[in-house]
This record gives sequence, structure tokens and C-alpha cells, in this order.
Amino acid sequence: MAKKEFEQGITPQSEDFSQWYIDTILKAEMADYSCVRGCMNIRPYGYALWENMRDALDRRFKATGHQNAYFPLFVPESFLQKEAEHVEGFAPEVPWVTHVGNEALTERLAIRPTSETVICAAYAQWVQSYRDLPILINQWANVVRWEKRTRLFLRTSEFLWQEGHTCHRTEEEAREETMKMLEVYREFCETELAMPVVCGRKTESEKFAGAVDTYCIEGMLADGNAIQNGTSHFLGQNFSKAFEIKFLDEDNVEKYVWQTSWGVTTRLVGSIVMSHGDDAGLILPPRVAPIQIVVVPVYKDRTRGQVLEEAAKIVAELQDAGLRVKCDDRETVRPGFKYNEWELRGVPLRIEIGPRDIEKGHVVAVRRVDREKTFVQRAELVARLREMLATFHGDLLGRARARIASQTREASTFDELADIVETHRGFVWAGWDGTAETEAAVKERTKATIRNIPFEGSEPTEGMKDVVSGQPAKHRVLFARAY
Amino acid sequence: MAKKEFEQGITPQSEDFSQWYIDTILKAEMADYSCVRGCMNIRPYGYALWENMRDALDRRFKATGHQNAYFPLFVPESFLQKEAEHVEGFAPEVPWVTHVGNEALTERLAIRPTSETVICAAYAQWVQSYRDLPILINQWANVVRWEKRTRLFLRTSEFLWQEGHTCHRTEEEAREETMKMLEVYREFCETELAMPVVCGRKTESEKFAGAVDTYCIEGMLADGNAIQNGTSHFLGQNFSKAFEIKFLDEDNVEKYVWQTSWGVTTRLVGSIVMSHGDDAGLILPPRVAPIQIVVVPVYKDRTRGQVLEEAAKIVAELQDAGLRVKCDDRETVRPGFKYNEWELRGVPLRIEIGPRDIEKGHVVAVRRVDREKTFVQRAELVARLREMLATFHGDLLGRARARIASQTREASTFDELADIVETHRGFVWAGWDGTAETEAAVKERTKATIRNIPFEGSEPTEGMKDVVSGQPAKHRVLFARAY
Repeated sequence: MAKKEFEQGITPQSEDFSQWYIDTILKAEMADYSCVRGCMNIRPYGYALWENMRDALDRRFKATGHQNAYFPLFVPESFLQKEAEHVEGFAPEVPWVTHVGNEALTERLAIRPTSETVICAAYAQWVQSYRDLPILINQWANVVRWEKRTRLFLRTSEFLWQEGHTCHRTEEEAREETMKMLEVYREFCETELAMPVVCGRKTESEKFAGAVDTYCIEGMLADGNAIQNGTSHFLGQNFSKAFEIKFLDEDNVEKYVWQTSWGVTTRLVGSIVMSHGDDAGLILPPRVAPIQIVVVPVYKDRTRGQVLEEAAKIVAELQDAGLRVKCDDRETVRPGFKYNEWELRGVPLRIEIGPRDIEKGHVVAVRRVDREKTFVQRAELVARLREMLATFHGDLLGRARARIASQTREASTFDELADIVETHRGFVWAGWDGTAETEAAVKERTKATIRNIPFEGSEPTEGMKDVVSGQPAKHRVLFARAY
Repeated sequence: MAKKEFEQGITPQSEDFSQWYIDTILKAEMADYSCVRGCMNIRPYGYALWENMRDALDRRFKATGHQNAYFPLFVPESFLQKEAEHVEGFAPEVPWVTHVGNEALTERLAIRPTSETVICAAYAQWVQSYRDLPILINQWANVVRWEKRTRLFLRTSEFLWQEGHTCHRTEEEAREETMKMLEVYREFCETELAMPVVCGRKTESEKFAGAVDTYCIEGMLADGNAIQNGTSHFLGQNFSKAFEIKFLDEDNVEKYVWQTSWGVTTRLVGSIVMSHGDDAGLILPPRVAPIQIVVVPVYKDRTRGQVLEEAAKIVAELQDAGLRVKCDDRETVRPGFKYNEWELRGVPLRIEIGPRDIEKGHVVAVRRVDREKTFVQRAELVARLREMLATFHGDLLGRARARIASQTREASTFDELADIVETHRGFVWAGWDGTAETEAAVKERTKATIRNIPFEGSEPTEGMKDVVSGQPAKHRVLFARAY
């Protein structure tokens, strides 16, 4: 009955994946719709996951020599207009502050959709000599891009993110940084989130407004749709010329700096949900899960004291070992209800402990991913649970890799491409002549876009043709429908 | 010469304390003015300090059972208006978003000056039963309160802060929470920032717009001016009634929740600077200093290799011990220049290491606070530096305590009060009849305000009179000029 009550609330994935997603987020109390149009409340459980992701990323940024800083929320209209492509890309979805109290402002202020402009204005003051370079700065912040159609975490008008903004002396160094941070993202997604990604370059029509080149990590969700999990941009000198970020080089010549920017957002939370979850709810990757292990004591009145005492001991032991553990000792609900609730919330491992387990000197450990039960000897508890969490992570990653492998196909004709997208979703390799016309035609017919030009496998094969135009293919690219 | 170059840039405190403050912040690269009016860029060194403060506070919030969450930046106009005092207090300094892209919004959105309203709207959805209580949530966020006259960190239009928002079943529990968090702030200021504070209740005219009672921790800066370092509000049922946050209690009666909110901001960074700094620049409290120890190798060409090697060993050793250490091995500037630079940046301890020190098996450790030099045996390095940092913290705290002790006086007449404020600044105890008229008269003549009604010492003495009206004093309160 408890199980029913929980699952009732969640639409099965096979019936309506999008609805399953919303149901899961809401029931697991990760987030909900706020009363402010297009914005969400990130609830403590969702925020704790984001905090763990943030910390894991922040460690990587610092290990690669970056520092955090903070820049203003507001972008004066004149700043936004300094880089032509940039303003064109962002202006339509920017909220404008026109008044403070009852007074009209002399210049309208945009709420930042991204901070290139305000940060470049600061960098123009900070950089004078080659000795001031490189500048390797990251910002954790909220940004706003107004959305007509929103979806919790994946697409909200306000979202949280980090944005790295760096300045370099040479093009080569900036290009190296762009790739380095893309690799940080790739490694982070695999190591922490158990999400394999395909790295590649965006096409002209999909790149960041103001960038020379945009690179991305592209993931695949459980429904076969693609998702952009992070981007790293080589900005060239577009912004440094617009904002006059110049330095006197060692050769006494004044030069413009070379720049990069890169970011990931709270959308990654949605990506995790859609990558790993099942009909019972979330399945969270152990390294970032707010709770890695939940302990559920199972007792009758006369064994209550003994079992609760043992459960408390176990929790203390696991906490001391640095594991994130919670004891669910609520008296008002039955164990079955708790099992369902923590499955819904995606806790990787559940420990059941009752009087007979205590007698036998073990606990029962249940894996969220396949509900496999294991008896773990009390004496080996910490070591075995650590192993089980590592295995769990590996299994999630393996499953996600297998999905990409089985859901990646190749199309040699437009019909074939359309058919694969319609029938299977997934990634579809196809030849591309490099024109925007092909991209538009494919999008129009199939809703698929070129996700990226992958670093591996994008060399066209002998005689390969563009899947629409029939012209010789310049690249072999990945098409997919995406969130 | 190096020393001169640095000190040239900083106005002495005795000459112009406010200018000293700005010079120090700018030269130490903690922050600078952004191109956006009233906003600042928090530079990496300032932000690293804030991060350490944030982490130290966050640990305390979590240890007292709170969780973090995130709510929207935007406050619909209708929400802001739901609590009458609240809107009156904040509306004049609120930026309004009226358009997105080219489209006018049907309802204006304020940028949050504080989040009671949007958070209460969410709580109204989340709370149904007494089982949902208490709600103990904190948010780390940016907020905006437009300022005509700004000062880096102390008063900027946008600032960073944390805001706790809690809901309770009973008034008693909410009042307990209000006091608990005030105590968390007090303890945090002393333990982490070496800043002693006076805890007390704000007067009616100084309390938070919408609160029943506001409590604060009040500090004293090196120039004798006061500063409010944090506030904790008992909101009663003001917001729960405005936003309909009701729960079904165990007795089956529907009741409004009792609420609190509490916050500290990046203003605390300014407070640290003005509390501890001297004419050479910042002096940072070791527990939150971004760099606790700087190692400066001192060598000639032929000893370079040996000294740099030893310096690197020392740094590795200190890092392994969990100390935040930096080696300044720049080749382009001389040791004297480095000493001044790290003094300006307030690093608590400097280690000088040269060939003779290596020979003798020691290093020279110099305290930022009084430039006292100590020879520390290499073998005892970690243990001794840990001790020295602890002593350093104690010395800063002791110095600040002594300042409060020597700069707190008592006035029995208005003239006396005015004279003390004019001559000494500092805190001035005086009798108060509890009327806003006295507050206004004192402010008008002396620019001093009642900082708070302290928890200790506010009982009026026998026959004590109000310092202005001559009426019997209701309280003995602390007057001071404040930032």
C-alpha cells in the first residue's frame, strides 16, 4: 500500500517520460515551481545535490589554478551592446530594470544572462602588462534568460551556474585553456555524476553568441534524447577588442588579450535525473548524492531499543568514516513506506537492520539500482559499503555507456536519419557539408540538430555525402533531438 | 623604497580613516568599483576571504539543523505588498524589472532586497501539518538595495549574504531560534573573525521592516564607530498571516506558523578590515585569512637553488598540515617589496628563509600584527606555527576587546553624550525613556543612534533619567555613530 501510494504519484517512463521527470522532481522534493513565472524553488534535497556538485567542480577549478570572484548582477545596456553578436543573441530574453523605487534610471540595466561584458569591463582595468596574465577567474552566480516554456532544472528563467572567464597572452594559451576546461567538465561528469559525454565542437549556428568557437560535452538521457551538459568557449579577441583589454607585452608592443569562457549550470541536476532514474524515482550517483546510505531499523515493540541502539551505532560508524548517511527512525511510518520513499529519493544504498540481523552479526544492504540484497558482515561494514558505492557508481556509468553504444546509429540518407530519430531517438552519425541549410532542413523535418562535431570520428569516410544536399561531406557529425 | 611605494598609496588612519579604508581595499585587491553604479567587483582575494567566512558559517548552520535551498531573484510587486511594513521599508530602494526583451511585463518584478515574501509563498505550499515543522532553511544569495552613497563592502547596491528563514509551531520555539542564531553569529564573529560584539535588541525605529523584534550583534571599529554585524528577527505571525502559512496542529486546530529570519552579509568583510587593519594595510584574522602564512625565500645567485628547494619543502609540509600557505618566489621583486605587499594584504605570519637560516636549522617567523620576529626550529615548524596563529587570533580579539572596554563611556546629560560622541566616538551608555523623540533628537545633534538595548546592562540604574527628555529611563542603552 505504501509502495502504491508512492508510485501512484509517478507516471511510468514508458508512458510519458517528460511527465515522469516532473513527477519525480516534485515527489522527491528536489524543486518545485515558484510563484514567480518561469522560476523554481530549489528545495533542500535538490540544493544539497547541487552543493556537492559545486564543491566537486570547485576543487577541480582550484586545482587547475583558478580563483573565484564576484561581479555585478546588472549589465548596463551600453555594455551589452559592445559586442554585436553577443547582444543579438541575448537581448530578446533579457529582463530590463528601468526604475529604482519611483525614479527612472538614465540607462536601463539588464539582469545578466552571462557576465562576459561586466567582467571584461573589469579586466580592462586590471590588465596592463603581460605580467598580469593569465587571469584565471571563475564566478558562481545566478543568471537569467527568460524562457517561454520552462521545465524544472532543464530550462528555467533564472538558474544557478558557474562561469569561468580567462585572459591569456597568446591564442595558443587561450585555446589550450578552452580544451583544458572542457576536459575538466568531461572528467567531472564521468567521475562524479556517472554520465559519459561526447566532446566536440559546436557548429556556427549553435555556438555561443560572441565566441569564435564553442565546444561542448553532450550527454544522452534515458529516453535517448541528447542534452548539452556544459560548454567551453574560445572567445578569441572579440571581447578584448570590444572592451579594450590590452596589455604591454614583453616586446613592448600593446596587444589585445585572448579569452575563454566556460560554464555548467543547475541543468546538470536535470541531466542526472533523466540519465539514471527509473519508474521508482531518482537514482543518484553516489559521489554527489546528498545521502549515500539510508539506515532503516526494523523492529517490533520489544526489540525497539536494541535495534535503534544498533542503528545509531552503525550511523555513527559510517559518519566517522566520512560517508553521508541518514537514519530513518520515524515512528509514524512503516519500513515499507520508508523503502519506497528513499528509493524515490534515489539513495544509492539502503541498510535494513532488525533483531535477527543483529544476532547474526550482519546487516542487509540493498542497492537502489537493481534492489539486489547483500548480507554485509558488521565487522566489514565500512570497507564493504565503500566498495559497494564504488561499484554502484561504476554500474551507473557502465549502463549509461552501454546506452550510448546501443543508441548510436549511422544514417546515409535523409530518410534514414529521419526514421532513426523518429523510431529510436539516440545519436545519429551522418555526413554534413558544413552548411546551415542542411542543419535547418534536418531540424525542420526531424527536430534533430547537430549536437557537435565530435573530436573522435568526425573525419568523413571515403566518398561520404551530406545527408541532405548530397554534396561531399566536410564532417561526420552527431545529430540528435535534444532538451 | 619598496616600502615607500606601498605606503604612499595608503592614507594613514589618523589622517582620514575612511580614505585609509578605501585605499587598503583597493591596494590589497579585495574589491574595486565596478562600472555598474553602486556595485563592486569582489576580486579573488576578497572573495577567498568571504568563501572562508561562508564555509565557517555554513558549518554552524548545518550543525544547528539547517539546510540550504534557493529561491527566485524576482519578487512580484503583489508579493512585496502583502506585508504592509515590509513594502514600506523596502520599496524605495528596490529596482524594478518592467520589460523582458521588448515586451512589457503584466506585473512588475522587484529584484529581491530580502526574500521573506517569495520564501513565504513557497512555505505556504510546503506546510500543511505540524509534522512539516519546523522548517529550518538558509539561502546564500545576492540581494539588491539601491544605495545613493556607497562604500566598498559596507554599503553597496548589490551585496552577497545568507538569509535564514524558519517556521515553527509555537512562539516559544521561534523565539528560541531567533536567539540561537544570534548566538551563532556572536560566536562566529569572536571565534573566526576575532571581533567581539555586543548583543541586544533593536529599538522600534531601527528594527527590520515586518519583524516583531530585531536583535543584532554590534561591533566597534578601529575609529570608534559602531557597525551592525548581523541581525536575527523574530517575525511573529506577520508574514504567516500575510502569506497564509497555516498548519493543522496535533489538536486538529488550524494555526499560523511562527517565523524567524536572520542574516549576515559581505559587509562583514568591511568590518574585518576596519576592526583589525593598520597603516600598513589589512590584518586578517588567521582562521579565515585566504593565506595564513607567506614564505619568502631570501637568497643570492649562488644560494638560490638551495633556498628555493628548502622553501618548497616548507610549503609542502605546511600544506600537508592543512595550513593555507603561499610561497612568494617571484624573481622580479626584492624581499623587502614582498614583505610590504603581504603586510598590505594582511597575511598573519611571514616566514623568511635564507642560507644562514637553513644552516642553523630554523626559520624566521614575523607576526603581521606587531612585526615581532621569532626564530622557529625547523623540526617544530608545524606545531609552533599553529600555536602562533592561535596566539595571533587571541591577540586580535584581545585588542578589539580592549578597544570596546576603553571606548565605552557613560553619559548622564545630553551635552555629555554629544561631547563624548564628538571627541571619542565609541559606545556611550545613557538612559532612554523608550520614545522615538529622544532617538531623533540625539541623531539630529550627534549623528549617533541607539545601537541596541544590550542583553546585559540595560536595566536602568536607580533614578536614571532619559538623556534628552529627563523622564525616567526605561532602559540603559548604547548610543554610537555607526557605518
